[in-house]
Amino acid sequence: MSEELDLVRQGIDEVDKELVTLLKRRLQLVAKVGEIKSRLGIPVYAPDREQDMLAKRRNEARKHGISPQLIEDVLRRIMRESYSSERDAGFKCVNPAARNIVVIGGNGQLGSIFVRLFRLSGYTVDVLSRRNWEQDAERMLSNPSMVVVCVPIDVTLETIDKLEHLPEDCILTDFTSVKVKPVERMMKVHRGPVMGLHPMFGPDIASIAKQVVVCCEGRMQDQCEWVLSQMKIWGARIEKVTAVEHDRAMSFIQALRHFTTYVYGYYLEKYKVDLDTLVQLSSPIYRLELMLVGRLFAQDPSLYADIILSSERNIENIAAYKDCIAEQVDMIKCYNRENFIREFLAVREYFGEYAGQFLKESKQLLDQARDSIVHQTL
Amino acid sequence: MSEELDLVRQGIDEVDKELVTLLKRRLQLVAKVGEIKSRLGIPVYAPDREQDMLAKRRNEARKHGISPQLIEDVLRRIMRESYSSERDAGFKCVNPAARNIVVIGGNGQLGSIFVRLFRLSGYTVDVLSRRNWEQDAERMLSNPSMVVVCVPIDVTLETIDKLEHLPEDCILTDFTSVKVKPVERMMKVHRGPVMGLHPMFGPDIASIAKQVVVCCEGRMQDQCEWVLSQMKIWGARIEKVTAVEHDRAMSFIQALRHFTTYVYGYYLEKYKVDLDTLVQLSSPIYRLELMLVGRLFAQDPSLYADIILSSERNIENIAAYKDCIAEQVDMIKCYNRENFIREFLAVREYFGEYAGQFLKESKQLLDQARDSIVHQTL
Repeated sequence: MSEELDLVRQGIDEVDKELVTLLKRRLQLVAKVGEIKSRLGIPVYAPDREQDMLAKRRNEARKHGISPQLIEDVLRRIMRESYSSERDAGFKCVNPAARNIVVIGGNGQLGSIFVRLFRLSGYTVDVLSRRNWEQDAERMLSNPSMVVVCVPIDVTLETIDKLEHLPEDCILTDFTSVKVKPVERMMKVHRGPVMGLHPMFGPDIASIAKQVVVCCEGRMQDQCEWVLSQMKIWGARIEKVTAVEHDRAMSFIQALRHFTTYVYGYYLEKYKVDLDTLVQLSSPIYRLELMLVGRLFAQDPSLYADIILSSERNIENIAAYKDCIAEQVDMIKCYNRENFIREFLAVREYFGEYAGQFLKESKQLLDQARDSIVHQTL
Repeated sequence: MSEELDLVRQGIDEVDKELVTLLKRRLQLVAKVGEIKSRLGIPVYAPDREQDMLAKRRNEARKHGISPQLIEDVLRRIMRESYSSERDAGFKCVNPAARNIVVIGGNGQLGSIFVRLFRLSGYTVDVLSRRNWEQDAERMLSNPSMVVVCVPIDVTLETIDKLEHLPEDCILTDFTSVKVKPVERMMKVHRGPVMGLHPMFGPDIASIAKQVVVCCEGRMQDQCEWVLSQMKIWGARIEKVTAVEHDRAMSFIQALRHFTTYVYGYYLEKYKVDLDTLVQLSSPIYRLELMLVGRLFAQDPSLYADIILSSERNIENIAAYKDCIAEQVDMIKCYNRENFIREFLAVREYFGEYAGQFLKESKQLLDQARDSIVHQTL
């Protein structure tokens, strides 16, 4: 096209080759950090050190007249790579005296992540499922240090009921996405340490680093703390709330949100809206929203059925939302512009500083989305 | 903490310094490419060349044993920076013979982006608003090559009505987010070339590169094509559909989606749900969804009122959605798990390959979100 253009492009190619070798060197050094940290039992994810490091880099970028945000974004991306490549390195074991850990449902998608992480940390992990229960349960459950119930929500309580004869110092915990009933039942069945956990992620995560695990204390929490310390070493963020607070929040975070996402997809399907046109004409934000809807339907329907139907509270919550929709549809049917604006401003008030914060964050994320999203229709 | 750790971290610091200078060099080279391109009138955004280049880099990464996705993500981020820094460089003018361009509403947030871009491309641009109409309209509108109507949706038609006496070769276009009525009205008022445009982005974009502009042809499209060529040079992606198709799609992409987002926020506010707890316990995906809800309320309510209330079709669409919600709430009230799963699978069928594609894309995006999102409560 132009010799001049070709020449500059050759220059870019050379820079990019240097970039590849530089990235490689950085990943190797970070792997070394991971190895040392693991040996010393220091958590993988160190938010403060990360913030310090990024602040320094932003300053250097400024001095060179390039955008601080650019260097931060690039470094964050490289750091994410490091977290996920750290997975196979093994982790420091915070409780080497522990006897075996039994994960009931450890063959499942979520369970197997934890089985792997506990094993990488040097624990002896036994996996129980329906298939090997009769054969292995008695032996495995004879003297474990911890039992994790990680089974579908509709069989959680009956599974807990089978755990009456655990040793008194054994920690009993579950990974169910509701917490009041399982924790209650574990307290009833077992006399030792009890703690309800809810890992807030699906089986498709690249790394547990920075993922949230909600913890609802049951009994003898001090004896359970080593498990949380171990998870922090893996990089998890532990959030403690009561079981009641947890279930109330999840009724919004999971049940209502999954339901509205489901209904939106159902509606598009019912009216056979042309997806190709929607994709073709989407702004990045609608494309993102459509993506969040579509991704639901690539996943397991029974998981969503279980979450939505897991409590009366969820159904009531969703029904109240339905009434809200009906009320607001009546408003817009009257083309009541002023009312809409008044309600809108009340909601803005409620969101407070979050509204601006979310706008700022989403700008950045939408830019990223625009970079990477496939706009071609399939 | 450990000398060994400090030593490796020093190594990382050095690599990062090299990274900053390398980024700087790359940005300078790309700026040179932009300059040459602009001189030769080659579009800023070259999807094919971009794909080729990325494929090569992925290969090189593979050879070095590092993740191809890592190098692609890093390069995409750097390229985005290049697009936005290209903004001030000026653009090749595809129609140097053009007389003045009048942007009615060119002081507005969206209008001013285009005023700037046209000026950066060497056109003479006049801005008309309510304030200077009486004083300047006659002169500015006496012999323009193009008039752009970029005013709020509720005054679009009356503004078009004032444009009866444009020269016959003048292009008349509008940027309204509905297209059937404005295009119809422009065809009636003006006898020359007419084209409806809908830039699918807000005023907060960093660059127009890769942004979508929908084009609905009106009359004498061949005479309008230079405007689209000019926008492609800026980097925009032009999508042509009929005005009817446009409005039908926007009823979903904009009206219904904005409404459901609005109602979700309204619902949280009505029940005074504790936002801090939601933020604290959010998984990345819910945090993302909450962000997409909250960001709406940081923006102009009248904009959303206008979009939602802009047509009867929108209201009907939203009312039909409400009926869908009611129907599905009745289903879950009966705890009808099988029904839910059946409907779910039908929607999956409808999404077809998009479901898997969206899941794959969202995984990547959620990882990015997890990197950059602020988890601290405010």
